[in-house]
Amino acid sequence: MTPQRVTLITLGVADLADAKAFYGRLGWQEHGAQAGVAFYQMHGQVLALFGRADLAADQGRTGASLGTGAVTLAQNFTTEAEVDAAFAAALAAGGTALKTPEKVFWGGYSGYWADPDGHVWEVAMNPFWPLNPDGSLTLPETGA
Amino acid sequence: MTPQRVTLITLGVADLADAKAFYGRLGWQEHGAQAGVAFYQMHGQVLALFGRADLAADQGRTGASLGTGAVTLAQNFTTEAEVDAAFAAALAAGGTALKTPEKVFWGGYSGYWADPDGHVWEVAMNPFWPLNPDGSLTLPETGA
Repeated sequence: MTPQRVTLITLGVADLADAKAFYGRLGWQEHGAQAGVAFYQMHGQVLALFGRADLAADQGRTGASLGTGAVTLAQNFTTEAEVDAAFAAALAAGGTALKTPEKVFWGGYSGYWADPDGHVWEVAMNPFWPLNPDGSLTLPETGA
Repeated sequence: MTPQRVTLITLGVADLADAKAFYGRLGWQEHGAQAGVAFYQMHGQVLALFGRADLAADQGRTGASLGTGAVTLAQNFTTEAEVDAAFAAALAAGGTALKTPEKVFWGGYSGYWADPDGHVWEVAMNPFWPLNPDGSLTLPETGA
């Protein structure tokens, strides 16, 4: 039995300075300054950037060649215009477009971009998932 | 400029039923029931399990071979015993040990395990990062 929480999301990156510069261009503010790692405060949760080799070693598999791509980090917004703006900001910062935001079959609006290390972010507006005032998400009740 | 938030963490999985069974063995409760995807409520945030091929298509890169490993999802606890218990629960559920929890150089206690799709989870106790009562994390003030 484990709690349903993620305290820290760590992105393994090829070059920490480059990765910090990219997220800085997105407007993200690093929490203090530490050597070898960067932390960003989110809603009761932290995002970290950490060198890929350091991350492999920390995981107990020194020398492992870490991949990327099968994890998606999503940022939800309340309007399509906000989604478009976030997508544009990501590309302006040096991100790579995967899918330009568009209306999608489930009734929302969604696009995808990748950061310079290949980490995939979704930007989305989901009319069925209203955000809390602080931007966090509580899933609506279901009949199930 | 984008907000410092992650609304949804989506894990691409080889077989959705198998993945749901694994997280169910960990004690995670699915939010309602939907076809083709599973959602889990966290603190103002959601974890999703989604088929890897579906995820690639949703990202606008149908047929892409998605990898795993350079993202780490961490669960922090307040005691070493809780870390050990969470690590044991993960292995009992069918997870793979990467690093048995141990005292680490930065003053905490940390281990790593991987789920059946290779997604890496850290279980940790960090004496410098006290958790909020709800298990969420707010980074302490720094001098920087």
